[in-house]
Amino acid sequence: MDQVVVTRDENIATVALNNPQRLNALNKPTWARLGEVLRELSADDALRCVVLRGAGDKAFAAGADIAEFATERADAKQAKVYGGLIHQTMQSVAQCKHPTVALIKGACVGGGLEIAACCDMRICGESSKFGVPINKLGLTMGYGELAGLLALVGRAVALEILLEGRVFGAAEALQKRLVNRVVADDQVETEAYAMARRIAAGAPLVARWHKQFTERLSVRADVAPAEWDQGFACFDTADYREGVAAFTGKRVPKFSAQ
Amino acid sequence: MDQVVVTRDENIATVALNNPQRLNALNKPTWARLGEVLRELSADDALRCVVLRGAGDKAFAAGADIAEFATERADAKQAKVYGGLIHQTMQSVAQCKHPTVALIKGACVGGGLEIAACCDMRICGESSKFGVPINKLGLTMGYGELAGLLALVGRAVALEILLEGRVFGAAEALQKRLVNRVVADDQVETEAYAMARRIAAGAPLVARWHKQFTERLSVRADVAPAEWDQGFACFDTADYREGVAAFTGKRVPKFSAQ
Amino acid sequence: MDQVVVTRDENIATVALNNPQRLNALNKPTWARLGEVLRELSADDALRCVVLRGAGDKAFAAGADIAEFATERADAKQAKVYGGLIHQTMQSVAQCKHPTVALIKGACVGGGLEIAACCDMRICGESSKFGVPINKLGLTMGYGELAGLLALVGRAVALEILLEGRVFGAAEALQKRLVNRVVADDQVETEAYAMARRIAAGAPLVARWHKQFTERLSVRADVAPAEWDQGFACFDTADYREGVAAFTGKRVPKFSAQ
Repeated sequence: MDQVVVTRDENIATVALNNPQRLNALNKPTWARLGEVLRELSADDALRCVVLRGAGDKAFAAGADIAEFATERADAKQAKVYGGLIHQTMQSVAQCKHPTVALIKGACVGGGLEIAACCDMRICGESSKFGVPINKLGLTMGYGELAGLLALVGRAVALEILLEGRVFGAAEALQKRLVNRVVADDQVETEAYAMARRIAAGAPLVARWHKQFTERLSVRADVAPAEWDQGFACFDTADYREGVAAFTGKRVPKFSAQ
Repeated sequence: MDQVVVTRDENIATVALNNPQRLNALNKPTWARLGEVLRELSADDALRCVVLRGAGDKAFAAGADIAEFATERADAKQAKVYGGLIHQTMQSVAQCKHPTVALIKGACVGGGLEIAACCDMRICGESSKFGVPINKLGLTMGYGELAGLLALVGRAVALEILLEGRVFGAAEALQKRLVNRVVADDQVETEAYAMARRIAAGAPLVARWHKQFTERLSVRADVAPAEWDQGFACFDTADYREGVAAFTGKRVPKFSAQ
Repeated sequence: MDQVVVTRDENIATVALNNPQRLNALNKPTWARLGEVLRELSADDALRCVVLRGAGDKAFAAGADIAEFATERADAKQAKVYGGLIHQTMQSVAQCKHPTVALIKGACVGGGLEIAACCDMRICGESSKFGVPINKLGLTMGYGELAGLLALVGRAVALEILLEGRVFGAAEALQKRLVNRVVADDQVETEAYAMARRIAAGAPLVARWHKQFTERLSVRADVAPAEWDQGFACFDTADYREGVAAFTGKRVPKFSAQ
């Protein structure tokens, strides 16, 4: 089964995260393939818009594949390599030459929400769910991922999402500016592709310039490499091991601040 | 007929874009005169508040006067000169010493929306319409104008407005933070001048300092002159000529990304 | 009577501004003590969350104690010293190692709103009131305080709040993003502590890192000391003396822009 499925309707491409049995949970091959796909589509000048979605109706993506934590992200050193891959893919989404629309149904959580945040626009159904409940796993969002969330919702909402770790609904996501638009569940595809067609009908160079200019005007803190690595220090804590063990064992974690 | 009409009620000045037959479309003399008027009012220490509006009830301003495109903005070189004038006027609005309130009825589109975005506050009626549909004309917003929109609504909403090019209503404008307040259509003047009088009743130096401090704390990207010129590259494209021809001919444009 | 009362329930501390007879108006000893308390709590690694509130149900805090203006903030020189204390306390709130929740009932005005804005999250009751009506007193918010408000609500809303000086309700505060959540008046404690317990249940180091990373990614203007002092120039104006005299005399001030 392909991790990522690309389909095409005239000048609009659809990229689907494709692991619906596991709510499109994100694993290493999926991150790698998603990045490749976006770089390929970005280079295709015939395209006018890219729609990102999850396969099926139950999830955009439900976050990281926890099964991989033991093998691929067991400590800070491993996690930094994995984090580099995630960051590269996020950048490939964010810097796609063509406008990108996240079509969101069901769960848009953790890494799924981060991918959606890298798209230019987000549209979701009324029963969609959002959140980044990584405080229960003993995990932080690194600088690269956090910068994307901050640019979207601002400091107060980003902190609320990360400190509470609560999962919340579509109306609250709209109020928090996580999504541009909420529609009835059975209208998500219709409205997302109407949006994509409006974009595709506009002058293509204008869309690309507007993306570039907006990026150019975004002022960001210059985080040094040594600081960047702090984003992975959590993977060396006892609380990370406790968080993952509790999640796997379906019990409440007991954190010790160590 | 004056392009811009200034009236005065005690210490509150009203500046009206005055071409109601053409929905107050913005042409070169209007941009020039608006800038002059704002610089004059800014220098008048007896003033306490400036209200900007369009003449009549149908529009704040419906955007650029397309008739001028053939003569004043036919290519990038011409457009850069014209863009310099627009930018100077926008700065004169944004840097007005006195608080500025945009009183919005009807269409607030394209350049009209950009002018409103340079005011300190925006109040509109329920049937007002907003948007920047320049992707249909093959036109970009330059760096100066885009910076104002970004400061107001953030990256995700600015991209939505520019990439979709959709025209939308007052409730959505409020949700997008384009306006501070929406009131019933027949209450726009009443509420806008109530706002202006509250401002005028406050300590004037305090208002001026708060504007200066806010400006001083705004962090902006430093765009080099060569980059700035990219904002006018669209005027040398075939798609710009196609977009204007299609608009004039009331047909759907066929863009070629060239 | 203690200016600030600290209580503790397991790993959650509650800090209450404690002058309910005067709507918890902020005076010099309260500012000093609030800063001390937050620095002490920040250093206590056993804590997981700090809830800030006002004693009683009528106010979070109703702003500065005007009675002090004649003795402690009579001119720019005095005001600068006082402003240094306020800024130090604000920083102690903003930089608290542990997540902070503002529990808001009743008036959250002036300095009260500024303290709430320094917390990580804000939850309020439906009948709460918000505003910074210092334009009626002839007073400015200095750079330090304004930076906090700007980070929370953005330029357009900050200017609206400061230029109009209007006091407004909870629904508008939510729409303005001043608060994260509005609940029924009799549910404020219940919901605020539910929030605090969700935070306290997460991995503590993760919460601290997320606060640090968010702070590190915040880009701020670098205001020079000479500019900083402009924030206190208002205290040397005739309009400041008129504003305080009018407030004390319960009459409308007559400002002269001097």
